[in-house]
Amino acid sequence: MKLLEERILRDGRVLPGGILKVDNFLNHQIDTTLLYEMAKEFSRLFGGEGVTKVLTIEASGIAIAAMTGYVLGCPMVFAKKSRTKNLSDRVWSAEVESFTHGNTNTVLVSKEYLRPGDRVLIVDDFLATGAALIGLKALCEQAGAAVVGAGIAIEKVFQGGGEALRAAGLRVESLARIASMSDEGLTFCQ
Amino acid sequence: MKLLEERILRDGRVLPGGILKVDNFLNHQIDTTLLYEMAKEFSRLFGGEGVTKVLTIEASGIAIAAMTGYVLGCPMVFAKKSRTKNLSDRVWSAEVESFTHGNTNTVLVSKEYLRPGDRVLIVDDFLATGAALIGLKALCEQAGAAVVGAGIAIEKVFQGGGEALRAAGLRVESLARIASMSDEGLTFCQ
Repeated sequence: MKLLEERILRDGRVLPGGILKVDNFLNHQIDTTLLYEMAKEFSRLFGGEGVTKVLTIEASGIAIAAMTGYVLGCPMVFAKKSRTKNLSDRVWSAEVESFTHGNTNTVLVSKEYLRPGDRVLIVDDFLATGAALIGLKALCEQAGAAVVGAGIAIEKVFQGGGEALRAAGLRVESLARIASMSDEGLTFCQ
Repeated sequence: MKLLEERILRDGRVLPGGILKVDNFLNHQIDTTLLYEMAKEFSRLFGGEGVTKVLTIEASGIAIAAMTGYVLGCPMVFAKKSRTKNLSDRVWSAEVESFTHGNTNTVLVSKEYLRPGDRVLIVDDFLATGAALIGLKALCEQAGAAVVGAGIAIEKVFQGGGEALRAAGLRVESLARIASMSDEGLTFCQ
């Protein structure tokens, strides 16, 4: 998606440790017009899949997932992060390792909101190692819900998570695909 | 707002300890059509105020604030919660006590995204004691930004936070105002 690539080049900053900082427009301050354009693009890509629910993980996936649910005309559910292992039996739960924060969270969704028969589109702001996506997919599998695919704003292709998930049969559509990243700048996949 | 009141009566559940559970449509699973209608209502109420930024706090305020920013045609910023006191000098920060979770968080916003000259609409899903609103207002004051008001989905009027903030001169507009709440049900303010 040209609009997002241009914005990353203009306002993104590469930080030491393989971090791409996009908090100017995507995950601290959010450009709501860009948000709507990204949601429209996910809707174009997955609109024929009969999506019944958009699923994401708090906190930075919420805005884009909510807008995508709105454009697709279905509810959005966000998995909550919890460090406690002491969960009720009324939630689906999975472990997710955070690349950015260097910790592991238990993510959970109430059993009421993911059910057999649901056709789930997973949406997130970033895809790097794929840990968040794998966790969200695991929640859907526990619920017996079908995952129609994943819509990602920015994929760090060089970290391999997207490739592994595609090889495992998941449809992953990323709006900007970063091939390489260094202090000198970044390049997108052709 | 009739639509929201009806939804609270239909799907909300009163839990012990003064908790109103609305995770069926507002803060775990989100009804994105209702979300848009609430955003339109905030836009109707505050559209003449020259809002340059919508401000909220992670995680459950993000969806409604993002949609409100979209309808108003301005960016949205969400304050991040951090338990560390070890903050850089490049953020505005304030302490916020959580009624629901029984803890205190430091909330912070990068100085880049709240500035003098900004006209800020604070948006949140709930208003109870007013602690979150007071914290977000403090961030704006540190930045020298003007707060044009607060748009709240559900105000628990009996907890007094909204009344105190209005008495202190803040314009607070709540879409559903709960006068009382018990195991037997709830009533709205007339």
